Amino acid sequence: MIVDALTEKIIAMQNPTCVGLDTAFGYLPPELSEGAVTQEEKAAAVYTFNRAIIDAIADMVPAVKVQIAYYEALGPAGLAAFSDTCRYAKRRGLIVIADAKRNDIGSTAAQYAAAFLGPQTENTGGRSLAFAADFLTVNGYLGTDGIAPFTEACAENDKGIFVLVKTSNPSSGELQNLKLADGRTVYECMGDMAEAWGSGSAGAYGYSRVGAVVGATYPAEAKILRARLAHTFFLVPGYGAQGGSAEMLKNCFDGRGLGAIVNNSRGILLAYRKRGGRFDAAAREAASDMKKDLLSVLGAIHA
Amino acid sequence: MIVDALTEKIIAMQNPTCVGLDTAFGYLPPELSEGAVTQEEKAAAVYTFNRAIIDAIADMVPAVKVQIAYYEALGPAGLAAFSDTCRYAKRRGLIVIADAKRNDIGSTAAQYAAAFLGPQTENTGGRSLAFAADFLTVNGYLGTDGIAPFTEACAENDKGIFVLVKTSNPSSGELQNLKLADGRTVYECMGDMAEAWGSGSAGAYGYSRVGAVVGATYPAEAKILRARLAHTFFLVPGYGAQGGSAEMLKNCFDGRGLGAIVNNSRGILLAYRKRGGRFDAAAREAASDMKKDLLSVLGAIHA
Repeated sequence: MIVDALTEKIIAMQNPTCVGLDTAFGYLPPELSEGAVTQEEKAAAVYTFNRAIIDAIADMVPAVKVQIAYYEALGPAGLAAFSDTCRYAKRRGLIVIADAKRNDIGSTAAQYAAAFLGPQTENTGGRSLAFAADFLTVNGYLGTDGIAPFTEACAENDKGIFVLVKTSNPSSGELQNLKLADGRTVYECMGDMAEAWGSGSAGAYGYSRVGAVVGATYPAEAKILRARLAHTFFLVPGYGAQGGSAEMLKNCFDGRGLGAIVNNSRGILLAYRKRGGRFDAAAREAASDMKKDLLSVLGAIHA
Repeated sequence: MIVDALTEKIIAMQNPTCVGLDTAFGYLPPELSEGAVTQEEKAAAVYTFNRAIIDAIADMVPAVKVQIAYYEALGPAGLAAFSDTCRYAKRRGLIVIADAKRNDIGSTAAQYAAAFLGPQTENTGGRSLAFAADFLTVNGYLGTDGIAPFTEACAENDKGIFVLVKTSNPSSGELQNLKLADGRTVYECMGDMAEAWGSGSAGAYGYSRVGAVVGATYPAEAKILRARLAHTFFLVPGYGAQGGSAEMLKNCFDGRGLGAIVNNSRGILLAYRKRGGRFDAAAREAASDMKKDLLSVLGAIHA
C-alpha cells in the first residue's frame, strides 16, 4: 500500500522530506541552459537538470514532488520532460508526487485520474499510462463526485491523493479561514471531507490513501488539522523559500514523527547559488541540512 | 478587449453557445479511430476529429471550450493535440476557452498563466506561448495571490479567466452551498471574489475579464449570482448530457440576452450516434438545434 511504502521509506531514511522538482528553466546553471532556445531544447535541459538532482538525492530522500505548471509552461515538450522526470524518479526508487491540483466534474476527473493515477504500464497502446505518478494533488471545491474517480483509481492501482486543505500562500485564508454557520472553518470542512474520502483505506500506520495539503506557514491551523484528521497524511509545502521553519511544521506530525512529508523546492534546486559548487552537490548538501533541521525538532522517527 | 469580442461574436451570430471539445478517444467514429494504437496515433486521430468539428461549426458558433483533461489522458502527444486544436480554432476565427481549472500559489500560478494566457507568438524560442487560449478556467480556492498572476496576464495580453463559482456537477453543493457565518453561501463568496478580481476591467458591454463558471443545472443559484455579479460574464456548462435545459439557464443571462455563454460537449460531439450520418454534419445540426433552443427562451440578442 503506497502510503505505507512512503512511511517505511521515511522511517528507513529517517527523513520526512520531499524534493520539489518545480524546475523553472531560469533555475538552471549556465552550463545547462546555454544554447537552449526552443521549447524542445529548454525542456531537454530541464530533464537533464532533474536527472542530476534525482541522482544526487535518491539514496537519502524518499520522494519527489514534480510541479507540472513549470513543465506546461514549455508546452508539449515540457510535458514530455515532466513524464520523463516522473519515470526516471520511479526508476531510481523514489516515490513520485505529481503536483497538479487537478479538479473537475466526474466524467472529466476520470480522465485526469487515468492520466496521473492509471496502471503503470509502458506506452504499448492499451490503456497506457501518461504520467507515472504515485500520488496526485487535487482540489476538492467540486465535492465528492469530482473526487470519486481519483479515489477509485487509487484503490485500483495502489495510488494516493492529497487534497488541498490549508494552502501555504499568504491569501489562503481569504476563503479557507472563513467561518461556516456550523462553526467550522472552510479548511476544517475540507479537511473533514478529505478524511471521509479516505475512510476505509487506512494502512498499517493508520494513514489512508487520501491525504491533505497543509502549509508549513500556518502552524496554528496545522495543529487543529493534525488533531482533527486522524487518518490523513499531510503533504507540507512552504518550508524554506516561503518562510516555514522546522519548528512551525512540527504540528503536522504525529507523536511518532509520522503522518507528514515536508516539501522543499527552491531551497534545494537553487542551493548552488548560495553555496557555490556543482548544482547537484549543493542540492545534496541542502537536502542533508534540511533533514538534520527537521530531525532536530522531531527526534527519531519510529513506527 | 476579449470579452467584448466574444460578446460581439455572440450578437453577430445570434448564438450564445460554445462547443466543448472534450474529445475522448472513445467518442471518435470507427473511420477515425480504427488502427490507432499508440498515444501518438490516438492523439492524431483526435486532432483530425476536432478539425472536422471546428470546420463544421466555425461560421455559426462563436467559441470552443477545449477540456484539457481528455488530452492529458493521452500524455505529451495528447497535449500536442490540445495545442494544435487551440491553434486551429484560432485560425478559423473562433474564441478559445481552455478548460483546465488551474490553481496554485502565486509563483506557480504564474507558470500556468504563461502557459495558457501568454502572448500569442509562435515557438521562436523567446517567451513563447505554449497554448493559444483566449480564456482559461481557474479554481479560486487559494485566494487572491493565486489568481493575481492570471489577471495580470489577462491585462497584459488581452485574455480572460472564468473562476469556478457554482459548478454543474451533482455534489457541487457539498462545499459550495454551505452557509458562511456572515450569511452568504460559499458560492456567493466565491462569486464576490470573482467580481472583485475583475474590478476595473469591464468592457463596452459591462463585463470584465474575470468571469464565473455557473452550472446550467442550478437555476436558483444562477438567478442569485446573475443579480449579484453585475460585471461577471458566465460560462455555463451542464446543458444537454448533464441535464440542463434552455429554460433552466435563462437565469444566467441579462435582459439583453448577454452576459453568458452556454457550453455543450457530448451533445455535439456524439450527435452522429443519435442522428446518423457523418459526425461533422451531425455536429452542425446539433449545434443549430441548440442555438434555436436557446433563442426560443432568450429572444433576439442585442447590445
